[in-house]
Amino acid sequence: MHKLVLIRHGESEWNKANLFTGWTDVDLTDKGIQEAQHAGSLLQEEQFVFDIAYTSYLKRAIKTLDYVLEEMDLLWIPVYKTWQLNERHYGSLQGLSKKTTAELYGEEQVKLWRRSYDVLPPALTKDDERYPKHDLKYRNMDEKLIPLSESLKETIVRVKDYWDREIAPQIMSGKNVIIAAHGNSLRSLIMFLDNLSPKEIIDLNLPTGIPLVYNLDDQLYPIEKYYLGSEKHIERKIKQVAEPDNIME
Amino acid sequence: MHKLVLIRHGESEWNKANLFTGWTDVDLTDKGIQEAQHAGSLLQEEQFVFDIAYTSYLKRAIKTLDYVLEEMDLLWIPVYKTWQLNERHYGSLQGLSKKTTAELYGEEQVKLWRRSYDVLPPALTKDDERYPKHDLKYRNMDEKLIPLSESLKETIVRVKDYWDREIAPQIMSGKNVIIAAHGNSLRSLIMFLDNLSPKEIIDLNLPTGIPLVYNLDDQLYPIEKYYLGSEKHIERKIKQVAEPDNIME
Repeated sequence: MHKLVLIRHGESEWNKANLFTGWTDVDLTDKGIQEAQHAGSLLQEEQFVFDIAYTSYLKRAIKTLDYVLEEMDLLWIPVYKTWQLNERHYGSLQGLSKKTTAELYGEEQVKLWRRSYDVLPPALTKDDERYPKHDLKYRNMDEKLIPLSESLKETIVRVKDYWDREIAPQIMSGKNVIIAAHGNSLRSLIMFLDNLSPKEIIDLNLPTGIPLVYNLDDQLYPIEKYYLGSEKHIERKIKQVAEPDNIME
Repeated sequence: MHKLVLIRHGESEWNKANLFTGWTDVDLTDKGIQEAQHAGSLLQEEQFVFDIAYTSYLKRAIKTLDYVLEEMDLLWIPVYKTWQLNERHYGSLQGLSKKTTAELYGEEQVKLWRRSYDVLPPALTKDDERYPKHDLKYRNMDEKLIPLSESLKETIVRVKDYWDREIAPQIMSGKNVIIAAHGNSLRSLIMFLDNLSPKEIIDLNLPTGIPLVYNLDDQLYPIEKYYLGSEKHIERKIKQVAEPDNIME
């Protein structure tokens, strides 16, 4: 049996300000740090041990992972970072508030972008300062791979590619893995792990800072799956992310 | 021309308590964290950029690196951790104070262990709880490689091996590299980079938390070498580590 733990980063500065974030590299708030430390101490209490960790290129996920590993006294394990685990790219919505977006495009359209499987948000142009190629992180990345905007569908393609090439072989070889990432990159993983339909994955609300534990068989099919922590705490956190007025992405 | 930066971790809990540390995995103090952040902001101001980073298995070096990279907004670059960059293993002196050690073995003997090139401190036995094989980090390590104690000479052998296999090829290929490590693993690097004699390396006092910048030619010979920061600050830090009453290892 193989162990895989997923964790969604806690509150970031832009979650707090209720802005569309996507690939914008904003920091955790103090609350976000506490969420990560709490997750780490839960995993420590339950005597989890990881051999290897994965995260995105974005500091809110990297720092979440670091706080978790610090609590577990596992700062020394290998950590791999990849743009392929980044949050969904929100195109030219990145940096806009929910209010501004609704004024510009209408409530219904905003809801569609947030709650559909394959409707693309408005694309960036390449001269936009938010275009990833202008960021040192993506400077050497193949331009054909750099998104101008993504729906969940595009996010899944790049997450699945990294899973197949890098993560799945490590799990198969017997390594216990933790992945610290984002609402939509983790939804992508869950969709193909649990074999969910587009409708089912769109309806799934993944709480922040709560370790989601998978026990997988040798073909990496889930045998068991559960959130770590008190039932009350988990319920409260799920409600929080399901709240339609909160932009958490 | 290739850029290489070395940084020695700042104050740890056991530096503060004046205990022999070696492979004991103690945390940074608040002062140690500030030293790391200061180094990071210096590198940031001077517009250094790194492609890749190396550190040891010990959290005082890992966290020093993380604070530096955070200040530089480079948390996303690859970080490789290895036991081969660990501090010199201080054998059964680990955990003893300078005073206790002097009472047990005499002042002269302690000075010899601290200031000689190839005199081994008293070895651990394998049933000692401080024997590295009892630590999760080294559980899968080849027992023949696990030290029971080390002089600077043994430390150099394992550092040189990792440099030749892993770090030098990355620098040769054009990567800008930063290494966050320890007094004696960094001395080891400096000894073969600068082609120093055992006497010269023993006399070298590497300040904590001060970036040491190397510009290297294509054969990795140093063209230029300097500490980053104000002259006064650097002098004060060098004096501090040269003080014979301070155990910093």
